[in-house]
Amino acid sequence: MNFYVMTLFPEMIMQGVSTSVTGRGMARGAISVEAVNIRDYTNEKHGHVDDAPYGGGAGMVMQAQPICDCYRALEKRILEGQQAEGREQKKPRVLYMTPQGRVFDQKLAEELAKEEDLILLCGHYEGVDERALEILQTENVSIGDYVLTGGELPAMVMIDCISRLVPGVLGKEESADIETFHDSLLEYPQYTRPEIYEGRRVPEILLSGHHANVEKWRREQSIARTLAFRPDLLPEANLNKKEQKYLESLLAEAEERKKECN
Amino acid sequence: MNFYVMTLFPEMIMQGVSTSVTGRGMARGAISVEAVNIRDYTNEKHGHVDDAPYGGGAGMVMQAQPICDCYRALEKRILEGQQAEGREQKKPRVLYMTPQGRVFDQKLAEELAKEEDLILLCGHYEGVDERALEILQTENVSIGDYVLTGGELPAMVMIDCISRLVPGVLGKEESADIETFHDSLLEYPQYTRPEIYEGRRVPEILLSGHHANVEKWRREQSIARTLAFRPDLLPEANLNKKEQKYLESLLAEAEERKKECN
Repeated sequence: MNFYVMTLFPEMIMQGVSTSVTGRGMARGAISVEAVNIRDYTNEKHGHVDDAPYGGGAGMVMQAQPICDCYRALEKRILEGQQAEGREQKKPRVLYMTPQGRVFDQKLAEELAKEEDLILLCGHYEGVDERALEILQTENVSIGDYVLTGGELPAMVMIDCISRLVPGVLGKEESADIETFHDSLLEYPQYTRPEIYEGRRVPEILLSGHHANVEKWRREQSIARTLAFRPDLLPEANLNKKEQKYLESLLAEAEERKKECN
Repeated sequence: MNFYVMTLFPEMIMQGVSTSVTGRGMARGAISVEAVNIRDYTNEKHGHVDDAPYGGGAGMVMQAQPICDCYRALEKRILEGQQAEGREQKKPRVLYMTPQGRVFDQKLAEELAKEEDLILLCGHYEGVDERALEILQTENVSIGDYVLTGGELPAMVMIDCISRLVPGVLGKEESADIETFHDSLLEYPQYTRPEIYEGRRVPEILLSGHHANVEKWRREQSIARTLAFRPDLLPEANLNKKEQKYLESLLAEAEERKKECN
């Protein structure tokens, strides 16, 4: 899978993705990441890429021309690459990183991991001229309800998350690790050596060697945690009958405690 | 404000925060960022910081000892720093980056921006021994419902977002720019020069010079966009009577269109 990041800070992207899982994925040839500098495409003689917003207001707005020209050069190259590799020619999806967008989640990551080519557009300053977004037909995506300086960190977050789902990026050992949200449940608590640390013992059941019991305990821990911290995720969870009963018993307990407090 | 990041990848953090707004905030002395290498605190002779999970399963779990010792050394240093500067001595809050956590948003960023010292703990591998989280009394925070390789990107995201709210980090010009979610509404569309780009005109009203009309148009655009893309945010929005009426007219229109389609 090929990621193309349109940005004013290409070094920031390339440094960020060079470590850890994405770096290894690149080395293994499972993914490629290319940061394209929007500034290289400006027609403005001083190299400017932004100007004041029409209608007034603070900050600067990124202009349409450098973005559109950068995009077209990139799209042409991608389509040629598809042809050269004998792949089906397909206009790549263009994601614009903005708090205005659809909220990125694991489901969207799974969908995007199926693409061969993906363009990520990083805005900066006060935003991007709306006409550029119209012309590029961007899909607006947000990594969360908070304001960041630019689209670069969101792009790196999305590349990390999506890459982990691309075959060949994670080793066999690691792949099993994509668990949280896989089943709309939070992860169970983890423990490693030593058995006793500062007087705190590892839960007995984890030392039992009884695989089925360990599995049951972990599922119950996941259910209890999801109920405690993210009950909004529960309706999406796939619980078997026993687990459903366990959840109901937790809810009944909570109800009981509430009554006692009144 | 001082950020301390406990991590196995300190260079990744320092590279990430050295650019852009956080880099300038550091240069101006409004914030400081220090990445502390957890590996420096391991008692294990080969420098290991992780081991297999009790109860089985893929991946490795970060051990309690290096994390707890790293934390204690850091806490001691922070408390001494508070004393040296004549500040009130206060145990710093410790945020653990995990999809299991409370979802980070602009409101939490505003709350955290009031802290003087903040510790961010980045997990890696399959997670962190639960006892370390108990001992450090971490607050668990998630930047969104997706799985990432480690806590480093989330830490950089949070530092960027929080820094922007710390006095002296943004210039006067920029500060006005913290608008999205400020009022639980999405941003209005932005336009800059030229007036016509590839046949597309800037909306007439933005060229009118009539400040009040521009303001009204922008608010209405924000309301319409929030309704279209993030209706879940609307109950929190502060709308005046006219804006409330405008929203109702949009809802009535949508209702009308639905009827026509049936």
